[in-house]
This record gives sequence, structure tokens and C-alpha cells, in this order.
Amino acid sequence: MSLFLSVVPVSEAVATVHRLTVQVPQETVPLAEACGRVLAADVHADVDIPGFTRSVMDGYAVRAGDTTGAGDAVPAILTLRGRIQMGQTPDLPVKMGECLYIPTGGILPEGADAIVMAENTEPFGDEILVKKPLAYGENVVQYNEDFKRGEVVLPRGRRISVQDTGVLAAVGCADVPVTTRPKIGILSTGNELVPVTEIPRIGQVRDVNRYVIAAFVRDHGCVPVTYGIVKDDRAIFEAALARAAGECDAVLISGGSSKDDRDMAAAVIAEKGEVLIHGVAIAPGKPTIIGRCGGVPVIGLPGHPAATFVVLVAIVRHLLDDMTGSAVPEPVTITAKLAMNVPSTKGREDYIRVFVKDGIATPLFGKSGLLNTLAKSNGVLRVPAGSEGFESGSQVEIILW
Amino acid sequence: MSLFLSVVPVSEAVATVHRLTVQVPQETVPLAEACGRVLAADVHADVDIPGFTRSVMDGYAVRAGDTTGAGDAVPAILTLRGRIQMGQTPDLPVKMGECLYIPTGGILPEGADAIVMAENTEPFGDEILVKKPLAYGENVVQYNEDFKRGEVVLPRGRRISVQDTGVLAAVGCADVPVTTRPKIGILSTGNELVPVTEIPRIGQVRDVNRYVIAAFVRDHGCVPVTYGIVKDDRAIFEAALARAAGECDAVLISGGSSKDDRDMAAAVIAEKGEVLIHGVAIAPGKPTIIGRCGGVPVIGLPGHPAATFVVLVAIVRHLLDDMTGSAVPEPVTITAKLAMNVPSTKGREDYIRVFVKDGIATPLFGKSGLLNTLAKSNGVLRVPAGSEGFESGSQVEIILW
Repeated sequence: MSLFLSVVPVSEAVATVHRLTVQVPQETVPLAEACGRVLAADVHADVDIPGFTRSVMDGYAVRAGDTTGAGDAVPAILTLRGRIQMGQTPDLPVKMGECLYIPTGGILPEGADAIVMAENTEPFGDEILVKKPLAYGENVVQYNEDFKRGEVVLPRGRRISVQDTGVLAAVGCADVPVTTRPKIGILSTGNELVPVTEIPRIGQVRDVNRYVIAAFVRDHGCVPVTYGIVKDDRAIFEAALARAAGECDAVLISGGSSKDDRDMAAAVIAEKGEVLIHGVAIAPGKPTIIGRCGGVPVIGLPGHPAATFVVLVAIVRHLLDDMTGSAVPEPVTITAKLAMNVPSTKGREDYIRVFVKDGIATPLFGKSGLLNTLAKSNGVLRVPAGSEGFESGSQVEIILW
Repeated sequence: MSLFLSVVPVSEAVATVHRLTVQVPQETVPLAEACGRVLAADVHADVDIPGFTRSVMDGYAVRAGDTTGAGDAVPAILTLRGRIQMGQTPDLPVKMGECLYIPTGGILPEGADAIVMAENTEPFGDEILVKKPLAYGENVVQYNEDFKRGEVVLPRGRRISVQDTGVLAAVGCADVPVTTRPKIGILSTGNELVPVTEIPRIGQVRDVNRYVIAAFVRDHGCVPVTYGIVKDDRAIFEAALARAAGECDAVLISGGSSKDDRDMAAAVIAEKGEVLIHGVAIAPGKPTIIGRCGGVPVIGLPGHPAATFVVLVAIVRHLLDDMTGSAVPEPVTITAKLAMNVPSTKGREDYIRVFVKDGIATPLFGKSGLLNTLAKSNGVLRVPAGSEGFESGSQVEIILW
């Protein structure tokens, strides 16, 4: 066993994660509970939407041709023939020189091809003065303009957004096919760890990572299952890992992944399964382990919370996306101006926590053990492996978190 | 009653929302369930963090002065005096010319003031060759460098992020004081509405807004309570509104807010409570109502889903933030280059749905009734009331949603 970790690039770590075969079982949930879940199948429109040509305004259904040249000074004068009731098929057509009152969402009557907003008209006895010329189709939504029957309205793999729930409702998807939330086991290792309810003595720290990892996992559509603090004892660790791997769809181990020979996670994973990668060219987060145990993916994370968080964002996220069947695009990045120089070591990806405001990204330098800079940051600057850093004032891409 | 809505600027609508007095009750939740909730009190550090000066690396604890001028060719040669065990106070000091092996997180021994990474050393019998000069404090986190005992680590009003759960764990906040999730009643009004499980006939549409509003409300830390479809019948509507106002902390009404005289929401709210605003200079979303009924805030939203969504983002969000006690900063905006001209009417705020990718914002023009552009968009461009629009190629601010 060599003394140092032989690190691989982040891209290789991510590719390895994607090669860990995972099953993506499915289930059906009521639409009211679907937001945030991942679609397990394409969703098609069951009907044409809208199913009829309708008004998007309160106003008057007219023939656009009747309003040519109309204005404040020379309004078009149309005979008001009646009112269209909401949800009812108009019983009168609109003939040349006529109009019908129509509410927002009302069915466009035969003959009419545009709606003039009430605000652009003036009643004048039985007539309506129209003070604005209208284009054909103005303020009208055409039959199946929104979605055509049979069309895929949302694709498999899409994480259902707030807006998407509206699309699902419109196409009658009351029971939504989604992927099952995978169970992710979380083991906190280390003799120095104490539960959050205890006062740490000298040399001890509270088990912070359990909460950070669980919250991240839940935020990415999975169910965290925590296995508490596992002491640095090989038999205890082996038993905890075996139990978690048996009960969960993947296991995340916090701590125990350094090359220090006290750390035994890699050795146990290698013995009970396989270690695919131990050491990633990422800072912070180098001692990351990627492997498999009992048929499920196992990732060993650094013990320091801020390093853990970078590995969650840069690597574990890909595993969780695969396990939830999520075909998400890359996280949205924003461009900002760097407030100071960010030096970096060539050959490793550096993840620098930043606080972005008003287009200015201020790096929050801090040792990888610090939580305060992590909590103050709202994004991270990735310095690619081939770069020696960025100069103050340069435009950089920030991944928001 | 005048024929048209007299609109107010969005800023006035938002200010009115903020003046609706709301109570913000509190409760305590276990830390594992706190992510996403809003802190009801400042959280203080109960101990110094870290409680001891410690290593952030696996390596050797040294005196930085011993490594001055060290390099690959001329390493510093230090006598290895032993190993520090994780979580235990070192029983040996580091004297001049000496070092101790230390794991990540280990307690810095007396005399030592820096850690050299194992990778920058080479063992040589009982000695360690150090091939890099170290600065005082390098790879060390000092006693209480992260948080000082008594310090406010997270402020009241903060929405607890994934990272924040780590801060709370570190300071021993096992039971987290959070604001109680307000209950938001949702009424869908309109004779044209049918449940999502039905096939709409001509003139009918499915009740889309119920799901969009409920998902938005939940996404903003509230509990949606849906009251189903309320037909356009004054007695039925009055009863439903009274029931929702009695059971919930606020009520959102979808539809029934236009000036069309069939719409009775404003009249009923005025009779049973008060209408503060009816009509906002926002597009889409003009017929918005802001009022109060039975002592709770009531907001009337447009019936069209895409218009509803804009009003949720621009106005309702402020109500929900107040009700959850959230002192959130403005939503993060990104700067992007506009792919085409966006004309607008001076005097109203226009909200144009956009799709942003690679720094280019493409407007998704579409009538306010369309869902497909809403679901395809990942942000919105606000065109201020004083502007006539933006030209293609200009840099604009996009609110991500």
C-alpha cells in the first residue's frame, strides 16, 4: 500500500460515479405531492389545450377587419349584440360591424377573430366605440396553441418544478409516474466525534457531517438514513457498513477516508467490495473514496464539513441524480466579477467558496475545516485543473448553491 | 363602481402586502428536520469552535522555524518523536528539531505551530525529511477560529440552508427554534373549471392553479390547504371564503379577480373585510386583489396560470416571507445578454419569461394563458414601469425561478 493517495481528476471521478450501475424503481404519487420528484416517464397531453379558441382578456370579441384605422379620434363603432357567459358556447355569431362582450377565458364566437380589451373601448348606447386597431388573433389563444393532444409535455427525467405541476394538471396527470426516492445510508466515523447534544471535550468535535449530508441528500430527492457515530474499530465499522449497504441503495461515509493508516474505510470497502477510486484532485476534498459494497455504491467523504460539502456538490450529486433518474442540466451558473486574486495549484480542481452580490464575487478563503465561510457563501468558484487561478477583476462563472 | 381597474405600481402593492399585520408563531423542531425552515431566534455558539487548535491535514506537527529554507534538494531533517492519536491530548511536546505525526483533526502538540502535509515529506529511518518551508500556523485551525462562544452564528429570520444545518450541529443546536409553517387556504373559482381528473368539455378548463399555487406555497415554507373548485355563486363563494379565512392564516383566491362584473371576489372581500388594492400595474397579472377578510390577508390572483405565477413571484412571495418570518435577501438574479428586443408599455412592470443558457436570455413570448412557455422558462425578466423595454444585445438582470 503506497504512502500517498494517487489522485484522479474530478472528471474521472464523476465518470466512475456514472458507471456505478443503479436501479431506478418507479412509483405513482398524487399530483399534489409530485413537486420536486423526478418524472419516471414522458408525460403526454391527453387532450388539446386549450380545447377551444378563447379570450385572454375581458373585452369584446370583434372582427379585426372592422377595427382597421381605429383610434381615439376616429373609433370603430360596433353594435353590441350581447354577452358571452363563462364556460358556455356563444349562441350568436359576430357579423361584420358587430361585437359580443367576452370574459377572460370565454369561448370565441363564430365570426370573431380578435378581442379588444375593455380599456380600449367606450360604451355608447347600444354600441361600443373601439379606439384601437386590432390584429388578427390579438388577445386570443387558439385551439391547441398551448399543447397538442398526444404531444410530450414533460420528459422523463425531469425534476418537477412548481410550474410543471400546472402543466401536469392541464394534461390530466392526476397520478404522476415518478422515480422512487432512493435510501441513502449515512455513517459518521471517528473516535473524536460526539453527538450534537454533547459538549465536546478537548480533542472532540460534534458530528456535523451527519446533518449536512442528510440535508443535502434530502434536497436532492433522496431519503437519508443515518446510522449514527461509528467508532474507529474495524469490527464495528464493518458491521455498520454491512448493515447500511444491506438496508440502503447507497452509502455515504463521513470521515475515515484519509490515507492516515488509522483510517480503515478504504481497506474495509476493498475487502468487502471494491475501491474504484481513492483520492481525487479536488481541493478541498482530496481523500474521497468511490467504491461499491454489497452491490451498492459507497462513497467515502472527508471528515471536514466544508470539504465534505464540496465533494457533495462536485461528485455525490451525480450519484444522487443517477439514482433518482434525474436528467438535470448542469447547475445554473452566474457570471460575476472577481473581487480579488484567486491563486490555485495546477493539476487539481479548486473549489473556492464565494459570496456573490450585485455581480461581484468575493472569495471567502478559509481552511477546509471552517463552517463559518461555508455558511456565509452562496456559491462556489471552480478553478479548473489546468488553471493557475484567476486574477482580480476577471469575469468568472459561479455555481450557486 | 368604475368600469376599469385603477392600478397601482408593483412597489405599492408590495408595500401594502408588508403592512398586512401577520403573527409569526414559533415552535421547536429536531435539527434533522430543520433544513428549509426559518429561524425564529438568533442562534449562538454554546462553545468555542474548534475547542482546541488542530490539524487540517494528515502530516507532521512541526515548528515552522525549523523548516525555513527547506526544499527538495535541501530538506529540513526532523526527529520523529511519535504519533498523536485522534481525539487524545498529545503527551509529548515538539521541541526544536523534532516532529510528531498528526492525523487530520488531531490536537496540535505544545511547541508545534504548523503542520507539514505527509506528501511534502519523506521518512528516513527515525527522521522525517521536510521538503517545503512552512509558515507559522500553516494547515492549522486555531482555537475558536471558526466560532467564538456566545457569538451569533445564524440570525433570526434566516432560512436554514443545507450548510446551515452543519453550523447548527456544531453549536449544539439539537432542537431548533423555527417559525411555525403558516396555513395558506387556496380557493379556485370559476364555473369553467373542472377537476384535473375530468376531461374538459368545450369552454371548460382544468383547475391548474390549485396545484401551481399549492406547490409555490409549500416551496416557500407554508402549508397549502386546498378548498377545491368554488362555483361562481355568491353564497357558495362567501361560505368558502369564510371557511378558509377561519381555518387558515391567509387565503389565496385563484380567478374571480377581473373587473368583469361576473367576478365577485372583490365585492365579497370588500363586504366581509376590506379591499386595499384592486389592480396592479403588472403584466401579466393586472387584476390582482390585495385585502383582508376575517382578520387574515386575502389575495386574489388572475385565473390564467402564467399570470398567476408572475403574481406569486412578484407579490405573494412577500406575504409568505412575512408570514414565515423570513428575512430573505432578494432572489438571486443573474446578468445575461438579451437575444431579441423586448418592447414594453411604459407605466407598468412587465414580466417576460425567459430561458437563460450560457449567458444568453431568450424571451419566451406567449400569451398569459399559455403553460408551455411557463414550463420552458427558467427565469423572468422584469421590465420596470419607467422603461419602454430593452434592446437585443443589452445586458439584463434575470430573476431565476
